[in-house]
Amino acid sequence: MTDASRTESWLDDARLSGQVAFIAEIDRLKGVLRHTLTLDGARRENSAEHSWHISMFAMLMHEYTPEPRPDLARVIQLLLLHDIVEIDAGDTFAYDTAGYADKEEREQAAARRLFGLLPTGQRDRWTALWREFEEGVTPEAQYANAVDRLLPLVQNYYSGGVSWVRNGITHSQVVRRIAPVAATSPVMWSFALELLDRAVDRGLLRDDRSH
Amino acid sequence: MTDASRTESWLDDARLSGQVAFIAEIDRLKGVLRHTLTLDGARRENSAEHSWHISMFAMLMHEYTPEPRPDLARVIQLLLLHDIVEIDAGDTFAYDTAGYADKEEREQAAARRLFGLLPTGQRDRWTALWREFEEGVTPEAQYANAVDRLLPLVQNYYSGGVSWVRNGITHSQVVRRIAPVAATSPVMWSFALELLDRAVDRGLLRDDRSH
Repeated sequence: MTDASRTESWLDDARLSGQVAFIAEIDRLKGVLRHTLTLDGARRENSAEHSWHISMFAMLMHEYTPEPRPDLARVIQLLLLHDIVEIDAGDTFAYDTAGYADKEEREQAAARRLFGLLPTGQRDRWTALWREFEEGVTPEAQYANAVDRLLPLVQNYYSGGVSWVRNGITHSQVVRRIAPVAATSPVMWSFALELLDRAVDRGLLRDDRSH
Repeated sequence: MTDASRTESWLDDARLSGQVAFIAEIDRLKGVLRHTLTLDGARRENSAEHSWHISMFAMLMHEYTPEPRPDLARVIQLLLLHDIVEIDAGDTFAYDTAGYADKEEREQAAARRLFGLLPTGQRDRWTALWREFEEGVTPEAQYANAVDRLLPLVQNYYSGGVSWVRNGITHSQVVRRIAPVAATSPVMWSFALELLDRAVDRGLLRDDRSH
């Protein structure tokens, strides 16, 4: 299917036509591969599946956030949208410092193009939601970022730590990566540390813990 | 990974351990294939990706529901959860009447097992959300069902109608299938009918329209 045919006009309504073009375009997120494997170890997961899984995880763990809890509805909207820019910018591996150098620039351009398919008001609101997640300042964005850091640990642990082992990732690298979890939920943070200790014990993660 | 290892205990906390077992178990939804193809036509989409895509579609189309609009936060929770039972029960093709005969029974058993991994209160609340979607009575469930019927039309249309053509699906079969859309949103309904007319014109759908 060519891009041109996806942007055909519907009901002679520019607003609706833009929205249909958008829902068709973001189908491509199903083809953006992450470094995390599915739990059976059979293949890399893609960013569309991840966006669903992480939204479920946010629902599941919400009770562990201290009062006043972040607004879960907003958290889920942030998570559903947070990876869409990867359609153009690709997924940047969490421990790839070179890739992170121009990540922001690539993702800003992607946001302009992709949200630019939407009608004006919606385009602005959705771009703002995506920025809110990226900036990580509001309680909702902090919690959304925390679950987004934590779930891959669970996945790596249960799928045999392949991306950790392959890239020689150390315990302290992961601890730095998941720092947002500490500020968000003591229970989630204790769980993460216990999981990382078990991952070291099982040889999935290089041991550079200070004793 | 064996099921046993997924249900290991965390922080000596049965509640948290059940929740971690649940988030690990539902990873399997990434392996449940639907009849719909990704828009590039390369492969069948899975139910996890679909759950993300349909949640985005619900956000996108919400403005076309008449006032008072359904609560979007609840709609999205229904959609994130609605296909989880397919992990055990499989995806039933929309036009497979034989498959529909025991669909409810299979899905009830699946709901008991899967939501049964969750701690008590959460198990009951999430089972209720899943039932709400299935029953399709509340405004939120009606809208969730409507988008769930409508999005595959968009996908089939843009991916060349493969599953329609392969199964010899007719215009009137699809119209019956998407009936919930009519009651939910006049704009979405008009859009659906226009899309189906174009699909017939392009030979993607068998023409049994009455003239």
